[in-house]
Amino acid sequence: LDDLRQRLADIVGVDHVLTKADETAPFVTDWRGRYSGAAFAVVRPGSTREVAEIVTACAAAGVSVVPQGGNTGLVGGATPRGGEVLINLARLDRVRDLDTANATMTVEAGCTLQAVQEAANAAGSMFPLSLAAQGSATIGGNLSTNAGGVHVLRYGTARDLVLGLEVVLPDGRIWSGLRGLRKDNTGYDLKQCFIGAEGTLGLITAAVLKLFPPVRARLVAWAAVAEPAAAVRLLERLRAACGERVSAFEIIGRAALEMVLKHIPDARDPLPVPSPWSVLIELADSDADADLAGLLARAWGDDAADDCGEIVVAGNEKQAAALWALRENISESQRREGVSIKHDISLPRSRIAEFLARADHELQVAFPGIRIVTFGHIGDGNLHYNQSKPERGDNQAFIAQSDAVNRLVHDLVDKLGGSISAEHGLGQLKRGEILRYKSDVEMDLMRRIKRALDPQGIMNPGKVI
Amino acid sequence: LDDLRQRLADIVGVDHVLTKADETAPFVTDWRGRYSGAAFAVVRPGSTREVAEIVTACAAAGVSVVPQGGNTGLVGGATPRGGEVLINLARLDRVRDLDTANATMTVEAGCTLQAVQEAANAAGSMFPLSLAAQGSATIGGNLSTNAGGVHVLRYGTARDLVLGLEVVLPDGRIWSGLRGLRKDNTGYDLKQCFIGAEGTLGLITAAVLKLFPPVRARLVAWAAVAEPAAAVRLLERLRAACGERVSAFEIIGRAALEMVLKHIPDARDPLPVPSPWSVLIELADSDADADLAGLLARAWGDDAADDCGEIVVAGNEKQAAALWALRENISESQRREGVSIKHDISLPRSRIAEFLARADHELQVAFPGIRIVTFGHIGDGNLHYNQSKPERGDNQAFIAQSDAVNRLVHDLVDKLGGSISAEHGLGQLKRGEILRYKSDVEMDLMRRIKRALDPQGIMNPGKVI
Repeated sequence: LDDLRQRLADIVGVDHVLTKADETAPFVTDWRGRYSGAAFAVVRPGSTREVAEIVTACAAAGVSVVPQGGNTGLVGGATPRGGEVLINLARLDRVRDLDTANATMTVEAGCTLQAVQEAANAAGSMFPLSLAAQGSATIGGNLSTNAGGVHVLRYGTARDLVLGLEVVLPDGRIWSGLRGLRKDNTGYDLKQCFIGAEGTLGLITAAVLKLFPPVRARLVAWAAVAEPAAAVRLLERLRAACGERVSAFEIIGRAALEMVLKHIPDARDPLPVPSPWSVLIELADSDADADLAGLLARAWGDDAADDCGEIVVAGNEKQAAALWALRENISESQRREGVSIKHDISLPRSRIAEFLARADHELQVAFPGIRIVTFGHIGDGNLHYNQSKPERGDNQAFIAQSDAVNRLVHDLVDKLGGSISAEHGLGQLKRGEILRYKSDVEMDLMRRIKRALDPQGIMNPGKVI
Repeated sequence: LDDLRQRLADIVGVDHVLTKADETAPFVTDWRGRYSGAAFAVVRPGSTREVAEIVTACAAAGVSVVPQGGNTGLVGGATPRGGEVLINLARLDRVRDLDTANATMTVEAGCTLQAVQEAANAAGSMFPLSLAAQGSATIGGNLSTNAGGVHVLRYGTARDLVLGLEVVLPDGRIWSGLRGLRKDNTGYDLKQCFIGAEGTLGLITAAVLKLFPPVRARLVAWAAVAEPAAAVRLLERLRAACGERVSAFEIIGRAALEMVLKHIPDARDPLPVPSPWSVLIELADSDADADLAGLLARAWGDDAADDCGEIVVAGNEKQAAALWALRENISESQRREGVSIKHDISLPRSRIAEFLARADHELQVAFPGIRIVTFGHIGDGNLHYNQSKPERGDNQAFIAQSDAVNRLVHDLVDKLGGSISAEHGLGQLKRGEILRYKSDVEMDLMRRIKRALDPQGIMNPGKVI
């Protein structure tokens, strides 16, 4: 192992091999402080070639590897368990190419999502992936976790935004798949294996991303809805009237909104009469003169009946930002309210109402006083379905019930054809839990792919599978 | 083998096991008559369960399997090589579910693409995959070949239109992955393995498809462009002005148009002055009142300079159909002109002009008199780059040069970062050719996946890999 340490220093330079506890600390613990593990070393390569040499050296020494981008994950997927070489990709941060005629850009894995967005904007174009951690999260991490965010409804998840990848394989070879092609049916689509695999099959070092026409008109509105089923029907109306212009459609339950109103200065309910549920709507168009308000009005219609309730439309960017802030401050507000148990789930949109009715009821019966905080990307069928401790309850006593709460929620999600991890991944957090819900056939297929691509089992062990 | 024949009859009924030459003939030869092979039997199962039992029986007997949908492929991917059991899926033709709230439908593999489109339309929704063979081609075949067609620019390829799959695996087990979720990050995205694999990793029996808001306004236009580079720049202008409304953007070279004008009754050049190149533009919007002509005019602009030449806009559906017919009749017109050598290639849009300049020149030098017929989905970077024999040339002499022509074209495509099979797949046709262009690393990864999922090698042998 001393040989390996020397070899790593030879590859990246001694300054980029961190082994002292105070130096490695920021890398070996996840940002929420839930996961931690000692790494053999934290290595910071500056090129794909160096990544390949590191992995080759680790494979030869039989030492496992943990890839890490911005360390903003929520499931411990980029945290070592102990003894691995952690490869932090922050120094691979070049935009290698931006091809406006092809509407693509080629970026290295360590670029932050925000840097990617800004480079696209500077070229008069747009990269639509957008999420809270974008200032720190890297595009390599976004791809490895198939990140979602607020615009999936219109543009898809990270998987849908990639044309090509460059990957360092578990044996140190480089797969150069940086093609900028929208159609390529020459065999198996290998990039799909590595997207969303959380670094367990290879290490993404660069990607060709799709670019889109920029948005030049935007409308943000906040509407009251009586119940989740009404929100789903409203989305259908909106999509029929506005098509792809529907760029975001978020639901916010009353309990979530109340927490924001309580904890965030200057937050106020956009509607005069409190509504049990609200939806945040964003319409956007590449045409600066698009009459989005007119389209929204038409969707609302005269026959709107019960589903289309009170609505306020932001009159300017500041008001739009204020409406979005209500949505974005939910997690922080909930944190101030005490501990909570969180679920990142998805369901067919047609089963959401049934899920919430049953899950709310079962939780309230089983855990009296539990407070249910529901919000999320209902347009994608993705709910952040969180439970806060009873108002006078004890934090520790509540957290002790986590497994029972998870079981109840996950079992019902599964029964209704949903997913227990919509956008956060499995990592360490749900690696065991998923065994309860995946069929033997599915687990067997996953294991076969893992064995085929990483027979030595050195890529990010103890994650996903 | 007698046992296997009996076993197949037990599974599907004796009427659905075809072994006589006159009965199997329509199945064992591809529709263009290029590929043919004797099957051990043609079997027509009526359910996923029957498919699974057939594959189990074949695996036990060590007999290979060829899946087949509408038998409309162009590369021999659904034609036996000799001795296989051909499983034709036409009887799996049910729409199992249509969920408008979730904007999904669940269909069996044997549904024709047209039947899928019609079922979506009947529910006030839209399935956007569209291609010439849609009356016969099945959705299972579309997914197994990752079909493209005319609306990829807006909606993506078949891969982008699927949320879940049901697959019979090479050992006869059924993987039930019919989830209707837009976000699901619980491990490897297994469906991606089977999409575009041309039946070499498993047999798709059903799928959950995404539905879209229907198009209510449409504009079709035909414009002169001076050269391919101008067409690419024009597309950039259009996308900036019209965003996702650009639903199709096809290029048609003069030679292609001349053949249509010569062979198709009533075909006429839409423009008064012959142009060396034309583009067919389709804009579409879910908003019936959308001012597509206004948007097009704005894209054309006052500063349009050289790229925005003469343009005609269809005044009604009949005129729109006539413009599309010019594009759709190219293949038939070229057939009447004598034999041709065809290429289904893709390139980054930014390299198309360079490719055409170089390839045209090199071909004309190497094969004097050769006629180059260029058209295709330039919006996707996908060209149908075809060569017809010299006007007074001999068919056989021309065809004898196929390999040399292919080599020249494919080598240049590869050099410029393109694909030698954009939408048709590899099948038998390009299985050998691809070895010249894929890296050893890429071929090794493909073989590892093949071995992992089909260790016995019984799924559609001799195709793709």
